[in-house]
Amino acid sequence: MKPSSNTDSERYERGWRKLQEIDGKAGERVIESLDEIAPDLGRYTIEFPFGDVYSRSSLDLRSREIATVASLTTLGNAQDQLRVHIHGALNVGCTREEIIEVIIQMAVYAGFPAALNGMNAAKEVFEERDEEGTE
Amino acid sequence: MKPSSNTDSERYERGWRKLQEIDGKAGERVIESLDEIAPDLGRYTIEFPFGDVYSRSSLDLRSREIATVASLTTLGNAQDQLRVHIHGALNVGCTREEIIEVIIQMAVYAGFPAALNGMNAAKEVFEERDEEGTE
Amino acid sequence: MKPSSNTDSERYERGWRKLQEIDGKAGERVIESLDEIAPDLGRYTIEFPFGDVYSRSSLDLRSREIATVASLTTLGNAQDQLRVHIHGALNVGCTREEIIEVIIQMAVYAGFPAALNGMNAAKEVFEERDEEGTE
Amino acid sequence: MKPSSNTDSERYERGWRKLQEIDGKAGERVIESLDEIAPDLGRYTIEFPFGDVYSRSSLDLRSREIATVASLTTLGNAQDQLRVHIHGALNVGCTREEIIEVIIQMAVYAGFPAALNGMNAAKEVFEERDEEGTE
Amino acid sequence: MKPSSNTDSERYERGWRKLQEIDGKAGERVIESLDEIAPDLGRYTIEFPFGDVYSRSSLDLRSREIATVASLTTLGNAQDQLRVHIHGALNVGCTREEIIEVIIQMAVYAGFPAALNGMNAAKEVFEERDEEGTE
Amino acid sequence: MKPSSNTDSERYERGWRKLQEIDGKAGERVIESLDEIAPDLGRYTIEFPFGDVYSRSSLDLRSREIATVASLTTLGNAQDQLRVHIHGALNVGCTREEIIEVIIQMAVYAGFPAALNGMNAAKEVFEERDEEGTE
Repeated sequence: MKPSSNTDSERYERGWRKLQEIDGKAGERVIESLDEIAPDLGRYTIEFPFGDVYSRSSLDLRSREIATVASLTTLGNAQDQLRVHIHGALNVGCTREEIIEVIIQMAVYAGFPAALNGMNAAKEVFEERDEEGTE
Repeated sequence: MKPSSNTDSERYERGWRKLQEIDGKAGERVIESLDEIAPDLGRYTIEFPFGDVYSRSSLDLRSREIATVASLTTLGNAQDQLRVHIHGALNVGCTREEIIEVIIQMAVYAGFPAALNGMNAAKEVFEERDEEGTE
Repeated sequence: MKPSSNTDSERYERGWRKLQEIDGKAGERVIESLDEIAPDLGRYTIEFPFGDVYSRSSLDLRSREIATVASLTTLGNAQDQLRVHIHGALNVGCTREEIIEVIIQMAVYAGFPAALNGMNAAKEVFEERDEEGTE
Repeated sequence: MKPSSNTDSERYERGWRKLQEIDGKAGERVIESLDEIAPDLGRYTIEFPFGDVYSRSSLDLRSREIATVASLTTLGNAQDQLRVHIHGALNVGCTREEIIEVIIQMAVYAGFPAALNGMNAAKEVFEERDEEGTE
Repeated sequence: MKPSSNTDSERYERGWRKLQEIDGKAGERVIESLDEIAPDLGRYTIEFPFGDVYSRSSLDLRSREIATVASLTTLGNAQDQLRVHIHGALNVGCTREEIIEVIIQMAVYAGFPAALNGMNAAKEVFEERDEEGTE
Repeated sequence: MKPSSNTDSERYERGWRKLQEIDGKAGERVIESLDEIAPDLGRYTIEFPFGDVYSRSSLDLRSREIATVASLTTLGNAQDQLRVHIHGALNVGCTREEIIEVIIQMAVYAGFPAALNGMNAAKEVFEERDEEGTE
């Protein structure tokens, strides 16, 4: 297990581009909201999830967003992050129908309340995108 | 919202075939273990998750298993079901590398302990399949 | 484990009547809110929880609602559903005092914050019913 | 909200009798296992859950145990305590069929894996009681 | 394990003083909000957490509040209680920087969404205290 | 929010030393167990939690371990990691009594079953250390 030789600023820049690709403005706003109180947490959020994990090659971005929407629907206490990643899933090529399917499936594993609350998040995201004229 | 006109036995048979397709023997054993104590829960487990949800057309089975592995790794208290669905994911076309990726990604959303315990489940499944000579 | 021979529309109708009996208007609204985005999830919510589970005979409805209020207070991330089922518990014969007792007891198993948040939900439901003049 | 004037030893004795009534030997063993490492946690477990909560009058013991089995099945990470309280539920008048019903119902709120694992706990308890010749 | 001979009113008074010391007005408001619906839960919240647990001598109050902020950030479904205990942590000598550190660390164990939502709670508390001119 | 200029190998080495300081052999074993299946997750576990988070200066290590024991007791589904960090807490200066206190306190926030299961983990760690003659 040899550590790689990335510098943190390489991770940061790679992560920032990946965050933009996936979450667009919504992702940026999460990071900015940390600027005054905990900029390091903002930096970690770019470096580790996006610079390290989402930048890996063995799984396509669409599959990654499916996994994240499933995980956040299961947790049930991270509605803001779920909305950001439903946007993300649509941005990287998932259809609305596929997101609805993933959330329905969570009724099996995380229970009906988790699925119903996940669907509310999807509804809000779809309406927001309808207003903006985004797919 | 018109209810469909499936009979329960159609749902059951469709679910049973789907369960076989995804989970093979491991899925059957779960159902059999319920035979004496709560056969109805066994029946529901075939009818609703497999007959209703996994049989839907809007999402491919590989994506469904990615969502399930993500959800079960996030819950962290369903190791038996996680192992069954890691088998399932491999049975429907995920690679070992992709499963490892999904579990690594859960470190971001559900924390490192959830990812580490998910990886233990994967390790056990891969060893089992190595012994059986399955991919 | 012989599958039953219900058609889905029998399950749906039985479930719809049971939903009305337990949750009245509040339950209907949950289903309607799914009409545009995921009518199938609305249908499943009627068919499986209400058509299959709540329609079973081996446990009285009052005990079922006690179990549900306990479960939703424990989860702590499903306040809307908790309010719907506190209404439901009262509709099928639980007293306000009994609901308060169940929520207090959850302090033992799910912790004091879960119990305090459950009690807030109860408070809102009781006030709503006071305004409507319902018991 | 006037504090009552119970002494702790009254709470302790009342709690101990209640624990005996509900959980019998299994409850005692939990307390004894804490004797060397954290006797105060053992004492609190008798005083607060059993001396304060389970001794309250506004809800019958059978309903209390239904709520607890529901809560522990939902948590999914407290199998030992779930087994103790399935014994408890049977000791205070629940039937095996009713316990099975409560656990099946948790498939709706906490998901199928929680219900399946809860049913495993019930199976172990029923087998143990069959061996002992207890109902 | 000999039960102590405190009367409940001693526990209550000790708990009330401890609640005041840690949470000040915010703690009082939680108790008052229970006055009409479930005064007994209010009383238990003073007696067990504050009268019994926080009054114990083997751990300093600052460490206790660190443990509580960690636990509530991990649960992720108790934002009100988290805000109360971030106030509490500051009241008993934690610095803002230390609280930020504890919440960042939770990204490791409970995941990034839990840490981000915990940080939002901290932000609100710090702004409130800035307005009041409290440290 | 300027990204720092650490290379990953600096983070890795700093993290490895920190892991050794806190968790000793137990931490090493966790990493080694990942060597064959997911060495990158092992590397991330060193780089992010230990190289980034635990190496920060604004909170002393003893407080960090208190926060981690609280978080893992609350999660309740990460007993292996809880045992590793109870060792860690003792290694960096917490007393056994303080660890017991943190776990007792979790009865308030995460419920009694979480506290009881946390105490079992502590018991196993203390016995292991007694055998080794470690404090």
